[in-house]
Order: sequence, then C-alpha cells, then structure tokens
Amino acid sequence: MSALYLAVIGVGGVGQAFLSQLSNLPSSLRPSLIFVSRSTKQLYNSSYSAINASDLPSSTSKLLSLSELSTYLSSAPGKAILVDNTSDQDIANAYPSFLRAGISIVTPSKKAFSSNLQLWTDIFSAVDASNGKALVYHESSCGAGLPVISTIKDLVATGDQVTRIEGVFSGTMSFLFNSFAPADGSGKGKWSEIVAQAKDAGFTEPDPRDDLNGMDVARKLTILARIAGLKVQGPDSFPVQSLIPDALASAKDSNEFMQELREFDGEMERYKDQAAKQGKVVRYVGSVDVVAGKVKVGLEFVDQGTPIASLTGSDNLICFYTKRYGANPLVIQGSGAGGEVTAMGVTADLIKVVERLR
Amino acid sequence: MSALYLAVIGVGGVGQAFLSQLSNLPSSLRPSLIFVSRSTKQLYNSSYSAINASDLPSSTSKLLSLSELSTYLSSAPGKAILVDNTSDQDIANAYPSFLRAGISIVTPSKKAFSSNLQLWTDIFSAVDASNGKALVYHESSCGAGLPVISTIKDLVATGDQVTRIEGVFSGTMSFLFNSFAPADGSGKGKWSEIVAQAKDAGFTEPDPRDDLNGMDVARKLTILARIAGLKVQGPDSFPVQSLIPDALASAKDSNEFMQELREFDGEMERYKDQAAKQGKVVRYVGSVDVVAGKVKVGLEFVDQGTPIASLTGSDNLICFYTKRYGANPLVIQGSGAGGEVTAMGVTADLIKVVERLR
Repeated sequence: MSALYLAVIGVGGVGQAFLSQLSNLPSSLRPSLIFVSRSTKQLYNSSYSAINASDLPSSTSKLLSLSELSTYLSSAPGKAILVDNTSDQDIANAYPSFLRAGISIVTPSKKAFSSNLQLWTDIFSAVDASNGKALVYHESSCGAGLPVISTIKDLVATGDQVTRIEGVFSGTMSFLFNSFAPADGSGKGKWSEIVAQAKDAGFTEPDPRDDLNGMDVARKLTILARIAGLKVQGPDSFPVQSLIPDALASAKDSNEFMQELREFDGEMERYKDQAAKQGKVVRYVGSVDVVAGKVKVGLEFVDQGTPIASLTGSDNLICFYTKRYGANPLVIQGSGAGGEVTAMGVTADLIKVVERLR
Repeated sequence: MSALYLAVIGVGGVGQAFLSQLSNLPSSLRPSLIFVSRSTKQLYNSSYSAINASDLPSSTSKLLSLSELSTYLSSAPGKAILVDNTSDQDIANAYPSFLRAGISIVTPSKKAFSSNLQLWTDIFSAVDASNGKALVYHESSCGAGLPVISTIKDLVATGDQVTRIEGVFSGTMSFLFNSFAPADGSGKGKWSEIVAQAKDAGFTEPDPRDDLNGMDVARKLTILARIAGLKVQGPDSFPVQSLIPDALASAKDSNEFMQELREFDGEMERYKDQAAKQGKVVRYVGSVDVVAGKVKVGLEFVDQGTPIASLTGSDNLICFYTKRYGANPLVIQGSGAGGEVTAMGVTADLIKVVERLR
C-alpha cells in the first residue's frame, strides 16, 4: 500500500466540515495532509511532512500559483489528491493540468463540469489517459451528499438508457416554493416575504439573486445531461427561467432588489392561483429529456400528490427515468444543501479515491 | 494494470442479465471469464483461457467442489473475482475461505450477510485482513440496483449516525398492498385474488408463501441494521409478522395454500377498513430503530399522503434518518426487483471491484 498525499483548497463551511470528517477517518483511509489554503493563505512545507489545517497562518508572503501547486504535488513521494472546496472557476480550469500531472481531484464544485464543454472533455480525456492513476470524483456537485452523480454514472456504465431526468435541484428553491405554495394549499405569506425570511435564515446566498436567477439549477442539469450523454454546451445553452423580474435586473444591490421584489408579489400570486385552479401547485423544476436532447429549467404546475408537489423543507428530489426502470423512476430525495451533507459527499468520494489509489 | 479473472456461479434470470451487461462493458472493465456454472454444470479449463458462457455443457462429469474452485481461482495468473448469482447458503458459507484465498466476491445474494452473525464477522474480517486485495460488494442484496447498500455504507464511513431506517423492502409486498389498499381508497379485489393475480403474473416466488412469510424483508433489514452498527444475530432474532395464517402453515403445497387463503380475506379486509377509518392505509413495513437497537417487520397503518402510502407498482422505498440529514430522511425509491435491475447492481459492483484491483 503506497503513501497518499492530500491538498485541500478552501476551508469555509464545506471545507471545515470536510476537515472534521477527515480527521475521524481511520488512518488507513486518511492521506497525509500536506497543503491547505484559503484565499491568500497557504500552509505547506518542502519536506512533504504532515501539516495541521488549524496552523494555517493569517497571511502567507510567498503564495504558490496553481501551476506551482501542481508541480509541488506531483513531486510528492506518493500519489497526490487535490480536494477543491471552492467554487473558483480558475481552479476548475486547472483540473486538466492537475490530472495530466497525475493528481486526482475530489470536489463539490459545479464549475468544472458545467462550464464550457471543452473543459469537460479535457477533464475526462485526462482521466482516461491516466489509466486509473488520476481520478475525478464530484458527487456533491449535484444534490450535495445525495447519491445522484454516482447513481447516474452506474446506470450509464452498466448499459442502461437514461431517458428523462426530472426534479427539484435547489434546496433554496425547494424551501421557497414549499413555503409559498405548500401542497396542503395553506401558504405562509407573500413571495417577497418568504424570500426575505429565507435570506434572514441563511437559506439563500447572501444575494438571493444568485439563487433566483436559476443558474445553480442550470449548472446541475448541465452536469447530469452530459453524464446521460448529451453534448450540452453550457448552462446558458438551454431555456432557464429566471425569477428576477426584468425590471429589477438593474437593482444596484441586494437590498434594493429585496425592496422592489414586493412589486412582483402579484405576479407570483397569479401563478399560485392558476396552478390551484388546475388542482396543482407551482414549483421550480429542472428536466432533461435525453431522447429529444432538451434541457429546461423553470416554473411548472405540478399535480397535487406527486412526490415533487409533496416535498417539504429544503429537500431535493431527483427522478431518473430509464429503460430498465420502466414507468416508475428511480428516485432520490433528501437535503441537497448544507455544509455537513455536502462535505459527506466529498469525504465519501475521497474514501473511494483512496481505495482505488492505495 | 494487471489481468483480472472472473468466475460466475448461477446463470438464471439475474445471471443471464448480468452476463449480457458484462458483454457490453468496455474491455478495460471486463475481466477474463474463466469459470461458469449452473447447478450441476460447469465450464472451465486448466489453462485459464477465456470461455464463452453460452458454451456451458448440458452436463459435467467431474465437478469442482467449492474448495477446489477456490484453489483453481487463487492459482489463476492474476486476481480473481467470484460473482455469485445464486441464493445458495453453502456458497455463501464459503465466502470467508474464498476471501482468505484472495478472491473478491460480488453478489446479489442476501444469504451471506443475513445469516448468523459469525458468518458476517468472518467475511468482513477476511476483507480487512486482505488489505484491499479481496473485496466484497453486495449492492443488490437489498433493493436490487437501487443505491441502498452503498449509501448506508457511505453514511457510516463518513461518520454520520444512522438513527432510523424505515421503508417498504419487498417488491412483491409493495405490489400486493398497493393493489389491495391503494392510497386513493379504490382497491382492486379481495386479498386472495390479488395474491393469485400476482402469482400468475410472476410477481411472487413460485410458492407465494416464500414472500408472505416476511423472511425476505427480515433478511434485508438484518443487513442494513448490521451496517448501521447493530449486532443482529439473524433474521429470526426480531419480530417478523408472517402473512401466512397459522391455520395454513401446514398446507401441503402452494396450490392448497392458495385455495385456503380465501378464508382469510375477511381478516385482511378488516385491517384495510380499520386503517381507512383512521385515514390511513395498511402496508408491510420494515424498520430499524438504531438508537433503541430494535428491528421489526410487519403490517402498519400508514398516513395517507406519506411517501410509503403513495407508492405504486412494485416500488421499494427506503428512508434513512440520520444525524446529519435531520428531520427529513434521505430517501431512495424505485423498482427493487427484476433481473435487469438486480443485475445492474451486480455489474456496477463488478466495475468498482475491477477499478480497485486492476
């Protein structure tokens, strides 16, 4: 069994939870931590001896560039694994060069897998060319720790045909609509009030527009569609319904946006009423029609009593319709956001990489 | 990358589907098939050259015993993997000796993991002692190809605490109760009629008593409870409600049983009515209370509108309540029976074993 070395970029919410889970792994599954960084701070040493993440200094004078980090890791006295807990596009863009240098990647980031198709191709070509030496695992890039990526990869790898993917892919959107238009018809306030409550409770991004523009869901759908075999160019290459009204696109900050959002309560109320008149509820749904090659994200009226209509809290729900599974889909449901469950996907991926490399 | 060798025992429904999926894997993931057997037929050769499963002769004069098979496989010029597609207890009992001989096991069989606790301990001790050389994967031993075993193993391995497991674990029981007492209150006939229809359609075991005694569900619960950390002695060490009326326990065959089952339609109808009066439906549910250390299997009255009450067809539904996931469980739902989806779990496991061993 050969020695394995670990570099961790990003020690925010997910990163801290990951480091905590890592510290509780049995030593046989725990690579030696030799590099930790957070924004402009880095901790490492030239002798590749194990470091303690809590010793990260308050500032670092000489920072390794991504290319220097790649050289540092590929020169380690054993195989190296990079855990990227950021959502930094520059780091994502460097995955192919890390992989070509024999460094495996584990990440919850969506950026590398949902940006331009060339980056996707470069990443998986580098994995293939490495002959099992450099691996990529990214379970938490969709649905956090829920077994979404692993399941669709298993379906495809064993020869099933995924025909349709459908569901609620954002914990924030799930919470907003489950509160605004619950299946029991109650409803807990106006749309702008519910968005404000969610923001105050930390259930949205600091700027709620980053959830309401639908791009988070579009990125997840891009990843799943690509695994299912579609050559999706990127998250802006298919229809995505933004819940940021055109008139508010120029709001100068999130406070001004939240103020003005009230003017659109009537429009959201009309959606809710229209759906109710048809015995349905309004939900923010993403779907991939693999057969027709179509991806879309936006509001849909969903039948009462269906799993999507019955969701509560901030649960995600992902349905895979496949040839083998027939009329009833394979369904995965549960919390799709939060530091602990996101880190769980990262830690479980790391274990799989260690088991393959050691 | 070292050569890998494959032995397959059992080429019935699941076995045939597995061989078909195997033949479609890319060559880099497909070990060399060197042994195939079905009851008293075997195909292999002393030079370890690849064989074709369809060449299995109609009879074999000199059969390898399990111990001879172990010697044959451990002497192969590369690591060997045994796929056991039977539900044979004798083969299951031999897993520890196969593993100690460095042979990995992939199986949909429940027998090895749900029989006496000593066998379980022997299997996983042998895996641990092999230092990653001999592996065991058994995804399809619960929920067929649904990602049930892998998910609970990931939860536990990353340090989550599974507090409760609950669900519908039998496709047959699911079909029977979804037909007998659907959530919409309709119902499609008397209990004995529905059992007869299911038998005719091949949705039950040839003798429906093998489903109705609840042991299939009890075995699955035993496996999950053990992975969650409980020292369950076996599937007969906790309460399992059999749906075979005491008075019919001595029916001499399944035909006599099916005849006499009609006398118990009244009793099942009463369960259904009692549940309906409480706004509920009757379902055959299994649960593991990990905190209290209790496992049970049997009829329960389930609230309308809950995922279990809303199941259709022969879907399984498994809920994992954990410390990290909080109030809302991680839920996996979908078909949990059938040759193709069961074989899918076996094939996906084989891929993982190949990726780790090669």
